[in-house]
Amino acid sequence: MAELPSKSKGFIDWYLAVVEAANLTDKRYGVKGMNVWTPYGFLARRALDAVMVREIEATGSQPVEFPTLIPQTEFQKEKEHIKGFDAQVYWVTRGGATELDVPLVLRPTSETAMYPIFQLWIRSHRDLPLNVYQIVNTFRYETKTTRPFLRVREIHFFEEHTCQVNEAAATARVASNLGAFRRMADALALPYVAIRRPDWDKFPGAFYSVALDIPVGEARTLQIGSIHHYRENFSRPYGIEFETADGGKSLVHQTTFGLSERLLGAVVAVHGDDRGVVFPPAVAPYQVVIVPIGGKGANAPVESAQSLATLLRERGIRTHVDVSEDRPGAKYYHWELAGVPVRLELGPREAEAGTATAVDRLGRKSVIGPAELGAAVERTLDEFRGALYEKALAEFRSAFETARHLDDLKATTKVRALSWCGQESCGHQIEQAIDGALLGTPEEEFPFASGDPGPCIACGSSSGTRWALAGRPL
Amino acid sequence: MAELPSKSKGFIDWYLAVVEAANLTDKRYGVKGMNVWTPYGFLARRALDAVMVREIEATGSQPVEFPTLIPQTEFQKEKEHIKGFDAQVYWVTRGGATELDVPLVLRPTSETAMYPIFQLWIRSHRDLPLNVYQIVNTFRYETKTTRPFLRVREIHFFEEHTCQVNEAAATARVASNLGAFRRMADALALPYVAIRRPDWDKFPGAFYSVALDIPVGEARTLQIGSIHHYRENFSRPYGIEFETADGGKSLVHQTTFGLSERLLGAVVAVHGDDRGVVFPPAVAPYQVVIVPIGGKGANAPVESAQSLATLLRERGIRTHVDVSEDRPGAKYYHWELAGVPVRLELGPREAEAGTATAVDRLGRKSVIGPAELGAAVERTLDEFRGALYEKALAEFRSAFETARHLDDLKATTKVRALSWCGQESCGHQIEQAIDGALLGTPEEEFPFASGDPGPCIACGSSSGTRWALAGRPL
Repeated sequence: MAELPSKSKGFIDWYLAVVEAANLTDKRYGVKGMNVWTPYGFLARRALDAVMVREIEATGSQPVEFPTLIPQTEFQKEKEHIKGFDAQVYWVTRGGATELDVPLVLRPTSETAMYPIFQLWIRSHRDLPLNVYQIVNTFRYETKTTRPFLRVREIHFFEEHTCQVNEAAATARVASNLGAFRRMADALALPYVAIRRPDWDKFPGAFYSVALDIPVGEARTLQIGSIHHYRENFSRPYGIEFETADGGKSLVHQTTFGLSERLLGAVVAVHGDDRGVVFPPAVAPYQVVIVPIGGKGANAPVESAQSLATLLRERGIRTHVDVSEDRPGAKYYHWELAGVPVRLELGPREAEAGTATAVDRLGRKSVIGPAELGAAVERTLDEFRGALYEKALAEFRSAFETARHLDDLKATTKVRALSWCGQESCGHQIEQAIDGALLGTPEEEFPFASGDPGPCIACGSSSGTRWALAGRPL
Repeated sequence: MAELPSKSKGFIDWYLAVVEAANLTDKRYGVKGMNVWTPYGFLARRALDAVMVREIEATGSQPVEFPTLIPQTEFQKEKEHIKGFDAQVYWVTRGGATELDVPLVLRPTSETAMYPIFQLWIRSHRDLPLNVYQIVNTFRYETKTTRPFLRVREIHFFEEHTCQVNEAAATARVASNLGAFRRMADALALPYVAIRRPDWDKFPGAFYSVALDIPVGEARTLQIGSIHHYRENFSRPYGIEFETADGGKSLVHQTTFGLSERLLGAVVAVHGDDRGVVFPPAVAPYQVVIVPIGGKGANAPVESAQSLATLLRERGIRTHVDVSEDRPGAKYYHWELAGVPVRLELGPREAEAGTATAVDRLGRKSVIGPAELGAAVERTLDEFRGALYEKALAEFRSAFETARHLDDLKATTKVRALSWCGQESCGHQIEQAIDGALLGTPEEEFPFASGDPGPCIACGSSSGTRWALAGRPL
């Protein structure tokens, strides 16, 4: 197998090589940017979905599924929204040999599919809040270079849509989503920063947008999710109104929360190293791989491995026993490349003693058992997740630096925290200086954005300044 | 709420009314035949998917997901197949403002998406068998009247595709699929018959097709799934060949296994009654609904209900506590309509004694507890599934009758078992007589098709006769 390029020498080359070598996706499908989910990649995606479902349902959201196709007539009801998406939607124009009377859009997102139905579902304040989500595929006719999981034309997408009784309740839902994402990111051991985007970079049709960003080196950032407050921007054109407690009529205030397979790309990007993918246990296709060593035939290690696997599976641990004919060294190499959190080595001596040697993907070795093998494996997985988070957090912290002058932004290798007065013209000066984007202002407490920001880095004004971040979105 | 029409007086009217009243789907979406999965319907679908995943993975199949869009060039490689689908596919012809060079088909099924990739995945006999499945949505530009779950334009679809080393291995995979479906249908308490379709009614491109059919009254039948043996019909045009153990080249033999949301329609159709839906526990959105009765405020029944719910959820039982302000009678009516398998009534006396009154959806009442409440509820659910199956089986049996003369087929209200010589001309005579279809020959042991079938019901020949079934496919 060819060696992987070094992550530090070139992120994108490394990323593409590692995704392919670990067989997470197959890019050879006949439509560029539409990739095949291999069995191994699909298992990671399924585990990721389970994390999202668990956390969003814990906040009272209910699953739904709306159709993939949206009639042109509904799609074009909200003007800003359609302007934002018009250039990148796929159109279905024909059914069999028949030209369709109304062309259909393959959903790029589902506002325009859902809201005509929300208008039917919501009658009274007693129907609120309406918190629903779906996990579906969305489609974008992407003209930029596509990258597995990061920029694709068929996107595995999580989208929550909510209707609230007023603006304050919608703002509270944004906060609830931020809490749910905090717990999802914890499971993935992913440090991130929630940033309120500047007005010129918000979601088409939104009142404001909060993006969830991670740094990926060289001042680059990756948006891995977003939460939007729509106020009445959509409820007005779609007529989503309700009877208030005192018999009046009021429009709902709406929010959305979007995540995608990009989270899987982020897991690869953040945790991966020069030996391959590194999966946090929550999304690992196999959390544990057992490698029995030595003694062909009806030997103890293979049998012990199988019964240990059964024991672990009963505890809900995704476990694989590698009984292939490769040498142990080749197996270790393969499962490290594939990012398995914990490998259990089981030789004749361990089999006899009822122990196993555990090696986690950070290379930390321990002997576990003979008592409470299952609990010991769980503990090893937990500790691995913790160590992975600490490592990622250290790298996260070193990716930021404060900037005091526009010159600091030029050729920077760090995402920069800076003072911004809020004026769009200053924002664009900052963007020019860093050759990237003013990402916006941190929405939650953030270590590089505390205390007095000082005067605006662009115009020097001290009025209305706040901490902002600037970087180069991937 | 309007009363439901009677099931016995008109199946389709009853079916449409019950699906709507139970709020399993919303048909008011802007594209006919593309319906909205409501939260309640989605939970049933999720439970159904879990049954399919459990049983197919137990037979060694791995999950994958292939793109939704198929290039026209790949779609048209297998001639019979394209003939079968050409009139009913949706075409994507435009991306943004650009006409696509190669139009894309929204998959009606995934042979033509998967097989070019299988051709890359399979190199050697060691890569076989390849058993993969996906649960995705498929699309058909349906011109007949659409019906929720039964005939829709966006279909929630399960499809397994396998590649085997030779014809015998493919035949064995068909048998394995029949076993997996047996276990799925058991979970749904659905009696069915596996029927090998006559040649003129097989899947486009198949060597042979086995359909899974259920009777739905008045000699009507509903196909709820199918298993196909493709031999080399697809591997030849797609070039899926492998190196054999002795260094030669050989084409794979392929099979597929297809199921869909129609299974949910079948559950409604078979188990439902004049009071509404009846869910077998495996697919019930809520398996148990607890109704606390009496004593407003900080009263014992509501608290007991909540802690009983926690206890049941810990056992994996999907449980809902109805704390709405409706009267108990209204709640009973609602949850019977919605098909909840077991209702637990909890008044002050029960709360104090630690017991509950269980009423299953067949109306059978019992008092459970105070000891082992969780186990008692599980037992009640199991017994309910058994009783539901017995009831369904009795109806299933009464839906069939042997026919000895073509005249027996005219205006029959039963699906007919009859002798058929295998000739297509006789088949068509039978179809004309019953004003329906020759469904084919039972693939497994079947009570109405045992012993000597006697002479062909159409031509009177005794040569090559076998038992066949004829009915009126819905």
